[in-house]
Amino acid sequence: MQNRPSVIIVGAGFGGLTAARALDGAAVDITVVDQRNFHLFQPLLYQVATAGLNPSDVAWPIRGILGKQSNCRVLLGEVNGVDTVQKDVLLADGRRLHYDWLILATGATHTYFGHDEWETYAPGLKRIDDATTLRRRILLAFERAENTTDEAERKRLMTFAVVGAGPTGVEMAGAIAELSRRAIAQDFRAIDPRKTRILLVEGGPRVLAALPESLSAFALTELQKKGVEVLLNTAVTGCDAQGLSLGDEHLPAATVIWAAGVAASPAARWLGVAADRAGRVQVTPDLTAPGYENIFVVGDTAAVQYKGKPVPGIAPAAKQQGTYVAHVIRAAVNNKAKPKPFRYQHFGSLATIGRHSAVIDFGPFHLKGLIAWWLWGVAHVYFLIGARNRTSVAMHWFFNYLSFSRGARLIIGDDERKAQQL
Amino acid sequence: MQNRPSVIIVGAGFGGLTAARALDGAAVDITVVDQRNFHLFQPLLYQVATAGLNPSDVAWPIRGILGKQSNCRVLLGEVNGVDTVQKDVLLADGRRLHYDWLILATGATHTYFGHDEWETYAPGLKRIDDATTLRRRILLAFERAENTTDEAERKRLMTFAVVGAGPTGVEMAGAIAELSRRAIAQDFRAIDPRKTRILLVEGGPRVLAALPESLSAFALTELQKKGVEVLLNTAVTGCDAQGLSLGDEHLPAATVIWAAGVAASPAARWLGVAADRAGRVQVTPDLTAPGYENIFVVGDTAAVQYKGKPVPGIAPAAKQQGTYVAHVIRAAVNNKAKPKPFRYQHFGSLATIGRHSAVIDFGPFHLKGLIAWWLWGVAHVYFLIGARNRTSVAMHWFFNYLSFSRGARLIIGDDERKAQQL
Repeated sequence: MQNRPSVIIVGAGFGGLTAARALDGAAVDITVVDQRNFHLFQPLLYQVATAGLNPSDVAWPIRGILGKQSNCRVLLGEVNGVDTVQKDVLLADGRRLHYDWLILATGATHTYFGHDEWETYAPGLKRIDDATTLRRRILLAFERAENTTDEAERKRLMTFAVVGAGPTGVEMAGAIAELSRRAIAQDFRAIDPRKTRILLVEGGPRVLAALPESLSAFALTELQKKGVEVLLNTAVTGCDAQGLSLGDEHLPAATVIWAAGVAASPAARWLGVAADRAGRVQVTPDLTAPGYENIFVVGDTAAVQYKGKPVPGIAPAAKQQGTYVAHVIRAAVNNKAKPKPFRYQHFGSLATIGRHSAVIDFGPFHLKGLIAWWLWGVAHVYFLIGARNRTSVAMHWFFNYLSFSRGARLIIGDDERKAQQL
Repeated sequence: MQNRPSVIIVGAGFGGLTAARALDGAAVDITVVDQRNFHLFQPLLYQVATAGLNPSDVAWPIRGILGKQSNCRVLLGEVNGVDTVQKDVLLADGRRLHYDWLILATGATHTYFGHDEWETYAPGLKRIDDATTLRRRILLAFERAENTTDEAERKRLMTFAVVGAGPTGVEMAGAIAELSRRAIAQDFRAIDPRKTRILLVEGGPRVLAALPESLSAFALTELQKKGVEVLLNTAVTGCDAQGLSLGDEHLPAATVIWAAGVAASPAARWLGVAADRAGRVQVTPDLTAPGYENIFVVGDTAAVQYKGKPVPGIAPAAKQQGTYVAHVIRAAVNNKAKPKPFRYQHFGSLATIGRHSAVIDFGPFHLKGLIAWWLWGVAHVYFLIGARNRTSVAMHWFFNYLSFSRGARLIIGDDERKAQQL
């Protein structure tokens, strides 16, 4: 193991993990650093938030994935900087990790466009703790509505607002509609969950703006059929303990969910390189940070172009970048020619709208409705890492499908007091 | 629904839930009140703590179980007293619930024998949050051991102490042994989890004191074979941030788990009636509280005798009591003769010792080893409420069995800072 080049990978999302696995067997010593001990399958996180899946259905211990790869070790730790002179990654606890090659795959989070104080009232959905917090809030809102005798308060508790009509917002609104209209419809005595008001608030003129207009129109109709009120061209001007403000109007809503805005992690700041408006590093064609031949940036932290458009922030893009970077490092270690610049291959964009409906844009042709939903389900189950997760998710879905019940709807958490503030 | 007698059931554990279901169709209006929105299958809670099962594998939403029972409603709320004059149950938020019949099934918790300050350092295992907290502590201890360069600290992080060698303590110690020796044995680079030190500390002269001596002896040998150090006749004299004190000796241990001592919930205090040393209400032969013909106490909150011995604090006992109380109420409502006094039927006592080994005391005959373990597994899966849970637990176990991996080993939780104090 002596004197092999050291590869540090920061972040065990789709990009980082793919890079680590693609370096299996290479003559390097890999260290994967992450703040969490698990890889998260973010595309299904909204199912955890709406009590359809368990946290461990969408998360998988990193050590379980990489434990048998002998050139790779895993480190639980928080990175807060890079010393590009000494070539060290800096950890929050003061440790330094020396790198010969560095892969920054630190992802992105949601942004409140300068209103970070809204986060308390309108949590987002990026981490697994976000999902369990949201699940607790959603389920507690129904419990409190059942308990209260104040009609206005009951109405407020049974109003849910989702901000942002991208794929996450559309999926959340659809899943809450399904939860209230079906899964828990018969669970209460004083309230009728089918009367839950679900608002999807979007600043732009259409839902799923990244998809073709015909699919946006279809998704809009589907959402409305499921009982979601879609407010287009509507700006959120405030969030508080009672609800949210839309223009001059205040709307009482106990549960507000933030699904708008993406901000990259601070990798650009660590390196002192140029970033785009969302904070993404504007990488070179071989995915290195400008000025650093041995530092790669991949996934949601990188701004990459293809056919004059930005590469979308989706799992397949991050995975392709991870694979590419591993090829570059392998070539260098083996003194082979440098691979050609990275080229993104787009296979399609998709979003699901609750039960039995989805839209898929394959470029040349489109799919929508039930068949798109099944394809979406099969694709997601297939891509989940690990045999157990695949079986478990398939089984949960099958049960949900047959019974309309949601087995994971437990209100768990020590911060009951925080929840009481709703 | 007018003027039907009101039955309030406090607690949706085995006793309360069985009583509610046994009253299905009776001419009463039932309200089940619980602080949590789920029923917990406590016998498998230690599997959640040791990353073998998901929270939702051992918990089931109360509304899902009782949602279709038309004479029953469910209320999320915290009871903190009973007004026996007005016949009202008092909720923490100020509400009052009028009862004609009251069933108190509020369970028990662990006790630190007057040293409540130990709880911070030596959490117990009664609630689902206890289990997820313990899981986080156990898994983080290994992560920190991998990260540290201080040999003494590494040893402390890899020392686990379980206090109390009843069924829960024996199961926890066995499960930690299995986790460290098998499931995560190959996950780390700097440490060898197989060298984890696991102590089981018991004040009395043998493990599983409620079982016959021959089964205790067998369990002791099995634990030692699995690498658990069993300290008998050993009193814990202190717990602190660094470990625990045994007599005059201080033992550095990052994770201490409390599985000793049972204290009943404060039902006796609410009613102002006599309690035994553990706080249990000394009920009459028909399970009513002394002096109150319409107030029943069942499960771990009640002290009941059979054949001159106390009825054990196990699920079948609570369920039999719940069924009995429902019969008494039904008879009264229908103006039938009062049923004969409650008689407990003991079917057996059992405990599992990690993988492939368990002991069962059927009274006339005993079972031990592999066959007892399989019987234990089948019995537990069978008794789990709901088809999904049954399938899910069976599947998780099957995977664990085949692969030795533990899929639920996620370190989740907002209180990272609390965990850092380890």
